[in-house]
Amino acid sequence: MAAFADFEPLNTQTLQKRLGQLPALVDIVGGPAESWQVREVGDGNLNLVFIVEGSAGTVIVKQALPYVRLVGDSWPLPLKRSYFEHKALTRQEERDPGSVPRILHFDGEQAIIAMEFLTPHVILRRALIEGQQLPRVGHDLGLFLARTLFRGSDLAMSPRERKEELAIFADNVELCDITENLVFSDPYFEAKLNRHTSPELDDIVAQLRADRDLKVEAQVMKHLFASRSETLLHGDLHTGSVMVTEAETRVIDPEFAFYGPIAFDVGMLMSNFWMSYFSQSGHGERAEMRAYLLRTVEEIWTTFRAEFSHLWRTERRGMLYQSTLFEDQGDHLASEQALSHVLGDIWTDALGFAGCEMHRRILGLAHNADFETIEDTAQRARCETKALKLGRQLLVGRRHIHTVVEVNDLAEQLEKEIAT
Amino acid sequence: MAAFADFEPLNTQTLQKRLGQLPALVDIVGGPAESWQVREVGDGNLNLVFIVEGSAGTVIVKQALPYVRLVGDSWPLPLKRSYFEHKALTRQEERDPGSVPRILHFDGEQAIIAMEFLTPHVILRRALIEGQQLPRVGHDLGLFLARTLFRGSDLAMSPRERKEELAIFADNVELCDITENLVFSDPYFEAKLNRHTSPELDDIVAQLRADRDLKVEAQVMKHLFASRSETLLHGDLHTGSVMVTEAETRVIDPEFAFYGPIAFDVGMLMSNFWMSYFSQSGHGERAEMRAYLLRTVEEIWTTFRAEFSHLWRTERRGMLYQSTLFEDQGDHLASEQALSHVLGDIWTDALGFAGCEMHRRILGLAHNADFETIEDTAQRARCETKALKLGRQLLVGRRHIHTVVEVNDLAEQLEKEIAT
Repeated sequence: MAAFADFEPLNTQTLQKRLGQLPALVDIVGGPAESWQVREVGDGNLNLVFIVEGSAGTVIVKQALPYVRLVGDSWPLPLKRSYFEHKALTRQEERDPGSVPRILHFDGEQAIIAMEFLTPHVILRRALIEGQQLPRVGHDLGLFLARTLFRGSDLAMSPRERKEELAIFADNVELCDITENLVFSDPYFEAKLNRHTSPELDDIVAQLRADRDLKVEAQVMKHLFASRSETLLHGDLHTGSVMVTEAETRVIDPEFAFYGPIAFDVGMLMSNFWMSYFSQSGHGERAEMRAYLLRTVEEIWTTFRAEFSHLWRTERRGMLYQSTLFEDQGDHLASEQALSHVLGDIWTDALGFAGCEMHRRILGLAHNADFETIEDTAQRARCETKALKLGRQLLVGRRHIHTVVEVNDLAEQLEKEIAT
Repeated sequence: MAAFADFEPLNTQTLQKRLGQLPALVDIVGGPAESWQVREVGDGNLNLVFIVEGSAGTVIVKQALPYVRLVGDSWPLPLKRSYFEHKALTRQEERDPGSVPRILHFDGEQAIIAMEFLTPHVILRRALIEGQQLPRVGHDLGLFLARTLFRGSDLAMSPRERKEELAIFADNVELCDITENLVFSDPYFEAKLNRHTSPELDDIVAQLRADRDLKVEAQVMKHLFASRSETLLHGDLHTGSVMVTEAETRVIDPEFAFYGPIAFDVGMLMSNFWMSYFSQSGHGERAEMRAYLLRTVEEIWTTFRAEFSHLWRTERRGMLYQSTLFEDQGDHLASEQALSHVLGDIWTDALGFAGCEMHRRILGLAHNADFETIEDTAQRARCETKALKLGRQLLVGRRHIHTVVEVNDLAEQLEKEIAT
């Protein structure tokens, strides 16, 4: 990995000079570099993001900073995360071609990734807040989950290759640390960085933080997250990490990538759709949008399930559930029985992760624009309450909820009961 | 890690010259090196082992070979396993002081570990075959399991330290590969290296290899073994890896060490005691010895459980199940609830691993002397049949067997039913 002694943050003045000689960029943006228009547009929590526009085209330049942008330099965060992001993007492109932005240039020492400017794509979360129905995302994201998670695991890779990748990504410890603390622990006690819609949510927050079963289950999920090194995760797969048009879906920002449980990406993504569902009444009438969101989360799961099963039947060349023991012995059903087992566990664990994600987005440090953009705090609190309650139900009851339809039914009940 | 360009196997002639100048050895063995008596005593499957005796004392010198000794140079095996063995011994000594032989000298490039000569210790498996009751092993091994497994996990370590260790041991891929194939897959189909007591066991072997539920569960255990990177395992903790006197217990040979599920070491060890139990009737009357073995396996589990619980209450300083969420909120019972959860899962998974271990020792490549030394093959097959049946019961029924007493009862039933 690179050393970072010469690291220097880019700015709109220096970018032209520092990147203006790179053929990979000049070819796309067009020369001369002095004519490039550079805008800083990073609205995430961690990095600098520039849009670089020229006579011929446009590219995105992303640079990590040695601290958490949202918090400032009191919270250092290593530049090597750019290395993990680049590596994860490369893997995702191999495993689900066309699912991520094309990389044009990577500079490990400067923690810079230059990539394809996606246009007219918008951030999925933003589109959902605006009430846009994207017809393809459920299907595309279901495929992305199945392909990247299956193909990064011992179901598909050689044991040596997977263990090498595991070892490489084990060094992404600081980013894992953020998830471990902010998702699984801080929301469940009065941690410093927490905030919530107050005083409206004070009662339910106190109730959740006194809820023994809930807290034990959240810690069981943390244990699983930290110790089940099954596959290369995106690690932060929410609707803010997806860019969309009506016709296309791209997944961005995998800097939290590491080897963890298959169910984590699945659960976190579904959770963000359920949160979007509960937030809709804060943005308007939106009955159709709500129906669309439940359909979409169902489509994510059923597509994931179908594609994972397809890969199981056609690409299971790793050391797990070897066909030597099943199909090759003429026992096709044994392999299907094992598949049910694996999918059943992924489902159960995904619900647990989904529950934690709902809680941390409302009680923890990093909130969702879905709720945050509801200005009337009483109304926002009602939306958030539904999500908190569903989260609790999923986390504690996950072993007894068997289908996505059941979860959607629960969501609809909560939506009716807590009318806005 | 070391390069191995200059690697040269030791022999009884060259050892004096090559190691005779090392103060760590000369101090203990006594000079001059020319007077040392060197015997090669390796009876394991993988390595050279020398006893080096001199005027003042005796040491053990263990050297890895670049292939599997049992099979020959057609099966290469990397010398770096010596590095992992040395590292694991060091960790085990830190985590359970006095539980492993003292290391006197380590040469990574020559894959040599020189260590304390344990005397009058004998291999536990050998003692059990001879009908010796060792009063301390149950307690000592229960402590060893709890201390090494707890203290090597995220329950006790910092996340960074554990992930660093995980990455280091992920490189022990060839030894993991042996376990992955020989324990979890080969026994369940007609793999090349398999053998079993034939023709006596042919029927039951065919039955097991056609048993869909059994094979699916064995693969579920393999999945867990390969992907649940919880703690630093010994990785090969059977009764042949333990040296004993009436007063002392030492664990040796951790070259299979890597980050895997807590339950693996626990299950593999208990399994070897149950196998010893079933083998006893092949060696004599042995009713008392059988009772001793069931008492001992019970003691291993209860001691493990008690010590793990003690460490949970006093040393849980890692990121999992943080006291911030439980004890610090005045909710002591929440922490106990989580402990039950963790121990419950360890128990269930340990039974699964125990079942696989029973099968692979009878159907796979590496057999146990407990059974192998029974010369009458009809009698041996009866002993082995009991173990095969218990293994199947544990693997498939593990979620519904809650106590060690239940397993012991099952063992006693099988012992009666299949009289020798």
